[in-house]
Amino acid sequence: MQIAIVLYDRFTALDAVGPYETLGRLPDSEVVFVAEETGPVRTDSGNLALIADRTLAEVPNPDVVVVPGGPGQTPQMTNEALLDWIRIADTTSTWTTSVCTGSLLLAAAGRLEGRRATSHWLALDELRKFGVEPTGERVVTDGKYVTAAGVSSGIDMGLALLGRISGDFVAQSVQLGIEYDPQPPYDAGAPEKAPADVVELIRSRSRFILGQAPTT
Amino acid sequence: MQIAIVLYDRFTALDAVGPYETLGRLPDSEVVFVAEETGPVRTDSGNLALIADRTLAEVPNPDVVVVPGGPGQTPQMTNEALLDWIRIADTTSTWTTSVCTGSLLLAAAGRLEGRRATSHWLALDELRKFGVEPTGERVVTDGKYVTAAGVSSGIDMGLALLGRISGDFVAQSVQLGIEYDPQPPYDAGAPEKAPADVVELIRSRSRFILGQAPTT
Repeated sequence: MQIAIVLYDRFTALDAVGPYETLGRLPDSEVVFVAEETGPVRTDSGNLALIADRTLAEVPNPDVVVVPGGPGQTPQMTNEALLDWIRIADTTSTWTTSVCTGSLLLAAAGRLEGRRATSHWLALDELRKFGVEPTGERVVTDGKYVTAAGVSSGIDMGLALLGRISGDFVAQSVQLGIEYDPQPPYDAGAPEKAPADVVELIRSRSRFILGQAPTT
Repeated sequence: MQIAIVLYDRFTALDAVGPYETLGRLPDSEVVFVAEETGPVRTDSGNLALIADRTLAEVPNPDVVVVPGGPGQTPQMTNEALLDWIRIADTTSTWTTSVCTGSLLLAAAGRLEGRRATSHWLALDELRKFGVEPTGERVVTDGKYVTAAGVSSGIDMGLALLGRISGDFVAQSVQLGIEYDPQPPYDAGAPEKAPADVVELIRSRSRFILGQAPTT
């Protein structure tokens, strides 16, 4: 089983690494990081680069497509090379997935129309522009499309999809291997749980998080 | 504030990216990925490389040191260039931290003797060989040394340390920004919670997880 994780300028690292560190431990699978060109691809902070080992053209038929999000992603929403790859890969994929605002790229590629999906909590309304029904769930499965909420949710998505693909035993083994027994020191990971002033700050910075996404 | 995350051959990606995606969002901070040489450093799976932008020699005095773990880390435990950098950086650091078996490198560098610390649950006993008192906690702070349990725990460690450095508001803002509201589909992330056959499988693969670590 080939799992392709697509990188682009200013993606968010954990969006890609969460699924990599979970789905990528699927027995008899190969994870490949792809981008328009091979070589380093910088994350949103500019302080980290991951290597794309293969071009999009070299990996046209992965079994699992993973599209991360990121604040630099809005320019990608009109990047036809990237969107075409998503469309092509999706025609033969078993699962097409996203983390965070990666779902906006799936939507821009026309893959989510009429479906239920999720995204970073700040980007849920953007999904509606593409005829997608946003949900507040952390991981949403609609047919073969599995979308996850913001950044860190790709870990939960990866484990859930592992369970679907290979059963509970494999998924639990991966969870134990990465010791995913989360104990956040605060309970502020969702807007309905965080203090109001924290929510207000992040909302006011949504342009930072969503890049040049139209503010509505 | 300069945060240095050190990479080495066969490190585990999420060990490094968890702290990067949390601590790295500290206001007025700079995260720098360092290694013996600049350029790509491959992770344990071989399917991903992160770029080290600076050499160890170029970053001698970071404020925060982050040492990830990995199954390829045992050869690093006698890598004097790496251990010397840890010792030098530690003389001036405000915080010296690790994720997963990264604590074995801190211990091998003589930084944890007589202290309480944690590691991947399979590696806790290894800590004793260095005069370290292992604990089963997810994040352990002893003086300026902050060690985290396996792989995914670097996210919890990063948020906890953010709180110590900049207060609850900043830490909660980062948590909300990365939507860290974990909802694992299973409750199998710790050996006392996972099904017995899952624990047995991972224990039997501990050489895979701990690399060439001596089995005791």
